[in-house]
Parts: sequence; structure tokens; C-alpha cells
Amino acid sequence: MSENKPLILITNDDGYSAKGIAELTKMATLFGDVYVVAPAVGMSGMSQAISLSNPLRSELLSSQPGLVIHKLTGTPADCIKFGIDKITPRKPDVVLSGINHGSNATANVFYSGTMGAALEGAMNGIPSIGVSLCSFDADADFSVVTKHTQTILNCVIKNYLGKPICLNVNFPDVKEQDFKGIKVCRQANGYWHGAFDERLTPYQQKYYWLTGNFVNHDEGQTDTDEWALQNGFASVVPTIINITAFDQMAELSNNLK
Amino acid sequence: MSENKPLILITNDDGYSAKGIAELTKMATLFGDVYVVAPAVGMSGMSQAISLSNPLRSELLSSQPGLVIHKLTGTPADCIKFGIDKITPRKPDVVLSGINHGSNATANVFYSGTMGAALEGAMNGIPSIGVSLCSFDADADFSVVTKHTQTILNCVIKNYLGKPICLNVNFPDVKEQDFKGIKVCRQANGYWHGAFDERLTPYQQKYYWLTGNFVNHDEGQTDTDEWALQNGFASVVPTIINITAFDQMAELSNNLK
Repeated sequence: MSENKPLILITNDDGYSAKGIAELTKMATLFGDVYVVAPAVGMSGMSQAISLSNPLRSELLSSQPGLVIHKLTGTPADCIKFGIDKITPRKPDVVLSGINHGSNATANVFYSGTMGAALEGAMNGIPSIGVSLCSFDADADFSVVTKHTQTILNCVIKNYLGKPICLNVNFPDVKEQDFKGIKVCRQANGYWHGAFDERLTPYQQKYYWLTGNFVNHDEGQTDTDEWALQNGFASVVPTIINITAFDQMAELSNNLK
Repeated sequence: MSENKPLILITNDDGYSAKGIAELTKMATLFGDVYVVAPAVGMSGMSQAISLSNPLRSELLSSQPGLVIHKLTGTPADCIKFGIDKITPRKPDVVLSGINHGSNATANVFYSGTMGAALEGAMNGIPSIGVSLCSFDADADFSVVTKHTQTILNCVIKNYLGKPICLNVNFPDVKEQDFKGIKVCRQANGYWHGAFDERLTPYQQKYYWLTGNFVNHDEGQTDTDEWALQNGFASVVPTIINITAFDQMAELSNNLK
């Protein structure tokens, strides 16, 4: 592979065979040399989990000029660590994660394996972009996403190489003519109120599926990612990798005396 | 159970049978009515992962006045969601997670199942404390931890009920006479540089164990959790549940124009 092109490491959390990562990979080859290290199976909701109890296996799926694809029996964050340590010929210039089938806006950023991988990239000092589409359809139309993610990737390559910026990018599930543009936002303050769907096995034992209802404390606030998505914009939320609540430190110190 | 005592929900990531959660539970019963919902198996490194692909099962392990213990076939974050939705008679007043066998300071906060559970508690509006000891010993001495965590729990019950504060508390592995006190800190800026230990199965197939080296960009900075722990203090880092990088928004908006 050429040495003057950006080296792009890609993963996702829906697994190597998902349509979203195929579309993102195709787009990324327009920008640089691409290495894909993607989970062997679906890893939705895996957050930034890493494999401490189980060893991993990888398999080379294809190798051609400018594009090498592996699958790995690990989490999205594992894939980034493994990609950097074992697969790419040098430290990647950019990490891309996605395109996720489903929103990773608001509190989803904490549960998302897609964003777990992007945070992992940023911790390694690499500008990282998690990209998601607000549709769970396995055959979703990613054309608006791939078109406009190019603008964001161009911006990152031009301005942020070598900087650990981490972007949580979400697209509404709209056609091009209804797409309103890209909007830098803050994460809406909200959370998933967990609810469990109780069922019985054929053997009359109880089991539970996690479900939930999203509670938005920022309903109607126009500077949030949730508002952007509901109004036809792609949301871009820059995220941090140090979660200290600096503004609580003084009071807490005082209260602990 | 009485209604005027605080209701405390406890989980961990080492699993229901770990010594650390037993010690934390014993201590917590001094403060309130305790419900334990802990993972059925070890869940270290699970971050704030939630179970979207697999249903869960729970089992009541014991029930006595003031202390009810369940195990759940899910992640630490699942345990908090399940505890709130299915186990506790009302919304808990406090969430405790731990005592983890091993440090969750610095970047570990992102990977930690212990802290994933604490963040989940805070998202639900409940003051939450993740507690860890810098020792992986299954039979570690938790006496310093349980003694001084009482100070922190007292502070939270006195000052923060109903507030979504989230504390990442870590203790050094020292005897009482060498313990220097409790220090409110910021998360040290560092990360785990992933490295993979390559091995061969008996059938000559490659497999990999995730290992890593911690890189501390804040080496020597005395206001960090890592410094506190290396100098005999317990570190208390208040953490946030909105990871927007507010200070990057204006520049990013400009760069994306």
C-alpha cells in the first residue's frame, strides 16, 4: 500500500457481514488505504467492553491493493486494539466505526459498541468517527450517510490528523431531498429507563428480554443531537475521553471533609 | 423491609460469589436495606454493555430481613436495570458497585463493568459509587476499603440523595497504618496500549490474549487518581454522564462549514 495516503482502520458492532460496514468501507477507499477488522458476530450494546476472559481468533477474509479485511472473535474495542497491534503496518491515521444500523445519539453513546470502538481509537491518539443511521433495517439505504460522511471525513483529515478527536455522528433515516445538513450538537441529556419483557420457556421457566423507554430531559432543546435527528439533520457530537466531573470536585472535597 | 432506611442496590463485575461484593454488602447493611443483583459469572471488562442479543435469567439466592440477594445472567449494567425494574420495591436511594478486585482508576473507568453499573445508576438519577481495590487477589484484604468507604457512603447519603452523582472510588492495596486518607481527584489522562499475546492451540491454530501497557500522560501530576493511589490515598473521581466535548464544538462547527 502507498505510504502517502491516509491509513484508515474500520470496525463496527453489527459484525463484518453487515451492509453498513460494507458501505462505509467502499466510501473510505476513496480517501486512503483501508484495513477492516470487524467482529465475527453482532456486538450491539457492547459499549467499550474488552475481552479479558476469552482469547481471540482472527481470520483474513480478503486482501487486495488498498483494502484488507479481517474478522475477529472479539468486541469492537478489541478490534481497534487488535488492528493497531497486529494488522495495520503503522499506526492508523483515522478510525472509522459503523455505519451502525440504529441510532447512537444521546445516552446510546454509552452502550454503543460502535462508539466504544471510536473512543478506543481516540484513546490511542487517533481521530475517530462513529457513524450511525437511525434505521435498524438490515438492508437500509445508506446513500445519504456515505455522501455526507465524506464531508466529515474530509474535515477530519484536513484539520485533526494526530489529534484524539472523537465524533459521534448520527444520520436521520431520510432521503437526500429531505436531508437538512450537518449540525454540531451536544449530547441530549436523557437515559433509557430499563424495562424487562418477562416470558416463559417451553419448560415454564421465566426469562427476560431487556427493553426500555427513552426519557429525554432535553425535550425541545434545539442544540441537542436528538433534536437535530428529529428535524432532518445529521448530528455531530464531539466526545471526550476523560469523564471527570470537574465542576463537582470542590464541593465534593468539602463534603468529604 | 423498613421504609425509612435508605434502599441500597448493589452489584459488581466479578460475579455474585466474589469476596469483594460480600464485604461491600456486609458493610452496606449497616446503612440501609440492601438488594444485591449480581452477575452469575465474571463480567470484568464489560464496560456499560447491555444484553440486546440474549435474554436473561435470574435466581433468588437468599432473602432475610434487610438483605435480599439475586444473581442474574447478565452484565453489571443489566443488573442495575433489572434490579430497578424487577427486584427493588421502590427506586433505590443509592447504587453501590464492587468492591472490584483490581483498579478502575484512569482509563480503566471506560472498560470497567463495575463503573458501567455505577454510570447506569447515575443515569437513572441515583447517586452511585463504584468501589475498587488495587489488588487482583481473590482473597484480598478489604478491611481498609470497607472502613473508609463508610465515610464516602455517609457523605453521599447526607448530601446527594436524589442527585445523579457518580463516584469512581479506588483504594490502594495498603494496611490501615499506611493509608493516607481520601482524596478527590481527576481521572489521569492515560490509556492502555493494547498488545496481544500470540499462542498456538494444541492443533497449531493461532489465538490471542489481550494484554496491554498503561501509558500515563499525566505522570507525576499530583491531582490525579493514579498519583493518589501510588501515594497511599484512596482516589474519588466524580464522573459525568454526558460526554460532549463542549470546548470543541465551536471550532468543529467552523471546520465543518
